[in-house]
Amino acid sequence: MSELIKIAVDAMGGDNSPQKIIDGIIHNHKSNKGNFFKIFGNEIEIEKHIKGKLPTNYYEIFHTDEKVQSTDSPLEAAKKGKNTSMWLAIKSVKKKESDIIISAGNTGALLVISKLNLKMIENIDKPALSALWPNKKGMSVVLDLGANIECSSKNLLDFSIMGAALYKSLYPEKNTNVALLNIGSEELKGNETIKETYQLLNNKELNDFNFAGYIEGNELMDGKVNVIVSDGFTGNVALKTAEGTANFITSELKNAMTKNFIGKISSLLNIQNLNRFKKRLDPRLYNGAIFIGLASPVVKSHGGTDYIGFSNSLDVCHRIVKGNLIDKIKQNI
Amino acid sequence: MSELIKIAVDAMGGDNSPQKIIDGIIHNHKSNKGNFFKIFGNEIEIEKHIKGKLPTNYYEIFHTDEKVQSTDSPLEAAKKGKNTSMWLAIKSVKKKESDIIISAGNTGALLVISKLNLKMIENIDKPALSALWPNKKGMSVVLDLGANIECSSKNLLDFSIMGAALYKSLYPEKNTNVALLNIGSEELKGNETIKETYQLLNNKELNDFNFAGYIEGNELMDGKVNVIVSDGFTGNVALKTAEGTANFITSELKNAMTKNFIGKISSLLNIQNLNRFKKRLDPRLYNGAIFIGLASPVVKSHGGTDYIGFSNSLDVCHRIVKGNLIDKIKQNI
Repeated sequence: MSELIKIAVDAMGGDNSPQKIIDGIIHNHKSNKGNFFKIFGNEIEIEKHIKGKLPTNYYEIFHTDEKVQSTDSPLEAAKKGKNTSMWLAIKSVKKKESDIIISAGNTGALLVISKLNLKMIENIDKPALSALWPNKKGMSVVLDLGANIECSSKNLLDFSIMGAALYKSLYPEKNTNVALLNIGSEELKGNETIKETYQLLNNKELNDFNFAGYIEGNELMDGKVNVIVSDGFTGNVALKTAEGTANFITSELKNAMTKNFIGKISSLLNIQNLNRFKKRLDPRLYNGAIFIGLASPVVKSHGGTDYIGFSNSLDVCHRIVKGNLIDKIKQNI
Repeated sequence: MSELIKIAVDAMGGDNSPQKIIDGIIHNHKSNKGNFFKIFGNEIEIEKHIKGKLPTNYYEIFHTDEKVQSTDSPLEAAKKGKNTSMWLAIKSVKKKESDIIISAGNTGALLVISKLNLKMIENIDKPALSALWPNKKGMSVVLDLGANIECSSKNLLDFSIMGAALYKSLYPEKNTNVALLNIGSEELKGNETIKETYQLLNNKELNDFNFAGYIEGNELMDGKVNVIVSDGFTGNVALKTAEGTANFITSELKNAMTKNFIGKISSLLNIQNLNRFKKRLDPRLYNGAIFIGLASPVVKSHGGTDYIGFSNSLDVCHRIVKGNLIDKIKQNI
């Protein structure tokens, strides 16, 4: 039992909580017996969903009546103080009683309360928000997705090292190729900050990853590189544009395929293949964002995901801790 | 005949030129008798493709042996001087002998040679590169797509006015709704430049368009707004990310649909619907970018498009001139 990874879970964030959160924990436990869950929130509600479904030696409930609302500003959430489920879950990693913290709640509040409680990793100037993103060959890590609107070349260098460490923790058997998101592939393209970062990465002795130069937006998903680095403004626009494009295309496809009787019949015939397609693009597979740069990684599940999406995020938590993310960052910084 | 719109065509740019260019002109003429083509390039080659296929009172050839190569840097292209087909075509609008200029050649060279030859519209500080983009309800205009990496709030205000005028020229029957591309919809989000632009647009008396505030990347294609304004770095990343996502999804779909015999048969049954889907997303429909802010609009066709794509760009040229784009910009600036 001493080998279990201890995950601090804010049970009160996101839609349909705590039921979704608890169902996600139970679902996760079915395929992975390596986690111990420290669950923060309303004990009565949590007990109602968990009792008899998860062996009691795999979890502990920490009761609190207070929680951060999705409508709270980060400042309001921080002012609510130290008895919200979110704050207490973060406090648990601060006190080293848990290895990692996850919440499906208010993103701004989570970032601010994490920064208030957790120290930065030495020599990292700013933490970054990263996410998994599908590509033709598997998955990529993309960062920053909005935590830092303005970035220096030192920040982008830090993000490269942290992104590479995150990828290596999640996919230890793969080669890690890092690229900077730019508007052209030639060395002269882009703004001054990007060009400086290119030089910093080019001149740095890299052990754990390769630097692959620049990529453009249209290459984000072709799988040639698997860690993509950007300032938070550009990264956020890119991620959301990709989401919007995916929604647009699948809705156009649905319109076209069900336009007439033949279309409906043949789509029905092809249901297995269509389901395979849907599964490949299922947003629950890529659920969640990882806030890195602090003494402990902080995982943000999408508030609107279901228990399967939340369970996938718990899997990410497990792999991050098992992959020694924080040590990997420290070794490379 | 005096009513014909005069289009200066650089016949030597892009893949498979001048054949593709001339075939595009001939194709365009079939559905629209309102254009007169001033064609710049190698007369013998052009004659070979055009003779007997387009009535001689609809075109005139201006011979030159020289052309800009796709591999030329903008500086090299400019140094080649005044006898390239690209330069001469631009010169033709400068001398007011043509209403608009189109090229499928080297983008950087086209922008630089246009700026060298054509004056700015009064009170516009920088020209911008714009493009058409599909959305759930029709089309949007998006700018800037990479001509200006760093932008001030005055630049973004100019882009808003120019983009609105472009949309109104192309779609005179529609309402024009302008939004700024940002990383959140609240007034406080984004960098200083975007927040300043928001205030400028909010306080300005607008006649020809509505200001709809901020939109995020995932709303780019939902059709609530139809003019989307951004600095050139962010806009370029967004456009290319959308392209890359569309390619990724359609290739995943193709893989899934043809994985087995049933899939192939049912896709065959559904070929009409699949073709409708492909047609809706056909990049030839959105071919080309429009460089606006100079005394004449400059249209850049994609170098890799075919004659149908080029013909669609000629249609855009026609509608821009007929819609009095330049006057519309001057009235609003």
